[in-house]
Amino acid sequence: MAAGSEVYILGGYQTDFARNWTKENKHFSALMRESVRGALEATQIAPEEVESAHVGNFAAELYCMQGHLGAFFTEVDPAFSGLPTARHEAACASGSIALLAASAEIEAGRYDLQAVVGIEQMKTVDAGKGGTYLGTAAWFEEEAEGIEAPFPKLFGKLGDEYDKRYGLKDEHLAEISTINYANAKLNPNAQTRTWYMNKEHALCRTDDNPAIGGRIRIADCSQVTDGAVTLFLASRDYAEKWAKGTGQKLSEIPRIKGWGHNTARLKFADKIAESANDQYVLPHVRSTITSAMKRAGIEGVDGIDGIETHDCFTTSEYMAIDHFGITAPGESWKAVEEGWLEIDGKHPINPSGGLIGAGHPVGATGCRQVLDAYLQVTDQAGGYQVEGAKNFQTLNIGGSGTTSVSFVVGVD
Amino acid sequence: MAAGSEVYILGGYQTDFARNWTKENKHFSALMRESVRGALEATQIAPEEVESAHVGNFAAELYCMQGHLGAFFTEVDPAFSGLPTARHEAACASGSIALLAASAEIEAGRYDLQAVVGIEQMKTVDAGKGGTYLGTAAWFEEEAEGIEAPFPKLFGKLGDEYDKRYGLKDEHLAEISTINYANAKLNPNAQTRTWYMNKEHALCRTDDNPAIGGRIRIADCSQVTDGAVTLFLASRDYAEKWAKGTGQKLSEIPRIKGWGHNTARLKFADKIAESANDQYVLPHVRSTITSAMKRAGIEGVDGIDGIETHDCFTTSEYMAIDHFGITAPGESWKAVEEGWLEIDGKHPINPSGGLIGAGHPVGATGCRQVLDAYLQVTDQAGGYQVEGAKNFQTLNIGGSGTTSVSFVVGVD
Repeated sequence: MAAGSEVYILGGYQTDFARNWTKENKHFSALMRESVRGALEATQIAPEEVESAHVGNFAAELYCMQGHLGAFFTEVDPAFSGLPTARHEAACASGSIALLAASAEIEAGRYDLQAVVGIEQMKTVDAGKGGTYLGTAAWFEEEAEGIEAPFPKLFGKLGDEYDKRYGLKDEHLAEISTINYANAKLNPNAQTRTWYMNKEHALCRTDDNPAIGGRIRIADCSQVTDGAVTLFLASRDYAEKWAKGTGQKLSEIPRIKGWGHNTARLKFADKIAESANDQYVLPHVRSTITSAMKRAGIEGVDGIDGIETHDCFTTSEYMAIDHFGITAPGESWKAVEEGWLEIDGKHPINPSGGLIGAGHPVGATGCRQVLDAYLQVTDQAGGYQVEGAKNFQTLNIGGSGTTSVSFVVGVD
Repeated sequence: MAAGSEVYILGGYQTDFARNWTKENKHFSALMRESVRGALEATQIAPEEVESAHVGNFAAELYCMQGHLGAFFTEVDPAFSGLPTARHEAACASGSIALLAASAEIEAGRYDLQAVVGIEQMKTVDAGKGGTYLGTAAWFEEEAEGIEAPFPKLFGKLGDEYDKRYGLKDEHLAEISTINYANAKLNPNAQTRTWYMNKEHALCRTDDNPAIGGRIRIADCSQVTDGAVTLFLASRDYAEKWAKGTGQKLSEIPRIKGWGHNTARLKFADKIAESANDQYVLPHVRSTITSAMKRAGIEGVDGIDGIETHDCFTTSEYMAIDHFGITAPGESWKAVEEGWLEIDGKHPINPSGGLIGAGHPVGATGCRQVLDAYLQVTDQAGGYQVEGAKNFQTLNIGGSGTTSVSFVVGVD
């Protein structure tokens, strides 16, 4: 396994995930433009400095009837005409896949400064159509065609599998939802920051918290969100020059210390059949997490100060808890009961509010997680800061646990 | 600019581009499977050896109602479960973008053996719908929505611009079409190998050669094609080991000697406005070509033994001729008249038949070009072999000259 990279994160910008760009009558390109310009301003980087750009997006072809997404970068600023650009996709892990592609080019010595935009505009269609579009992240014909809300059902089955192997109580899922919503209130860019939600609400089994698919109810679900996040990644040489120019020391600039990347079988039933004799329900997700730690030279979750994980549903966060090694396999509920997951707990998860609280613009999520990790390890996370954080880890998942990508972001 | 890479091409496999997978009642996944298995067999690589996989695809979300395309790799062979995978997109340049991403990871030292699949299944819909889907490679709302056959019209305008700046005769476009169709007859995987077409046909202005959009008639167009091409890329270490195992010398294994990559403004009118005072109509395409040559340590087109270029329409090949430097800007017609473009000419272009003759499964084209370049420089191109070829160059274009990628493939 190759050693940890020398790829630095210079900062970035997140759009307000509460905004509805269709209601504002704004095109996909406007969403991209705001996030890129915001990131240029936040990092004091001149457009002329950017050498290449990557876009992470799941399905603008369906939501916005638009492909060739990298090319929209050239529309942001006249200086970007001619820039090498590309779009990368792995369903809800698209943002992380774009970060992997960009960081590989830096490690290869191709470029010194890269822009990476994770973006999705989803509120162009109603919930039914949107649910069908999301079904293309699964094996559409076999797992989603003609099925209402295919993804809640698939992640309901993840809960069912935990229940079967280890037992699973609704109250623990409700607590996960409650923490994410509570954290989101501290995040000025979170979609649900003004929404009302508490544990009683998440636990109720009435129309106030309607069933969506299988054991998944509305409080268990992440949001349908419009949003974009731009990050700047740099080589050591560029980061050193930039640090000097902005009055910082190189040692203060976070690095991508490690990464992991795996793809499990596409169909959920095939994944579960493969893992029947494994202590982890999704062993390839476990491998992604431990690979990232290993590349970062970190032995286990005690070396990680906080986590931004992929809670597309409460069951996926429940899975993440034991897969990160916070508890033994099947005992994720212990971390919930002990209060370890809260911002001031032993293993804070999703101080941002995660996908449930902060929102889930599909292709942007991997970039949003890494931006939040960057903010945490540079003590810029404001109301949702984990005190003294030096190393943060992300977990971004595409499909029903199919593609998984994890980054360890940290300062020395 | 970084030096030429140490990324080797071990071989690959092209599906028969004349096949219609919808008529065969076969899913996207079957198309991918055939190309990957064919490449494993052609290269004698065991599935367990593959470390990572990349998919180049334009718009399976529209043509096949399926995203998350990297994950389909895990369905090809049980050994691929867990493999890191990703999908890459830049409209009709998607295959080349996947090759760039894969080769960057090898140069970064992340992996030693990569599979790259370029793939598109397009015959799932009728020509009208297909034309609309292709419109998402342009700025859909501004250049394609409500317009019949938007891309023939955009590339018709490329011809108009040549006409305005330098003059352009239909007979030269007809000759380009004729050569591509003639070469395709020599290529056992070419879509049009059994079709009837000659210069008289290409020149005729009747319903036998109907107008499609602007000055573009049917004989000027590339095909709607189903197809997939898989290539294996390797590090020097892996290539050395593999060469030994297959009884070859490392010096006989082709390398990606150089690459270029640029993105021009998305809208065709903006490109033309930008190039008004430039001697090249599409200066960013020119820059892509010369960057690839420079990285390969080749001074100009005289160091290139043959070209596989992006003739989505005859006008784009006409543009390629002067942009490669075969003639002075605006004088592409001279190369046509001199017979330089034919297989035994001074500057052979598209011995395979190109997009017009061999076919254009959009996301596969960049990979098909590189596979053909590989076949040429290893003397395996059979009936369309350019004698003694050591260096071949590709040019793959997304949109109306928007994203361009070029590779120099060669042996020492």
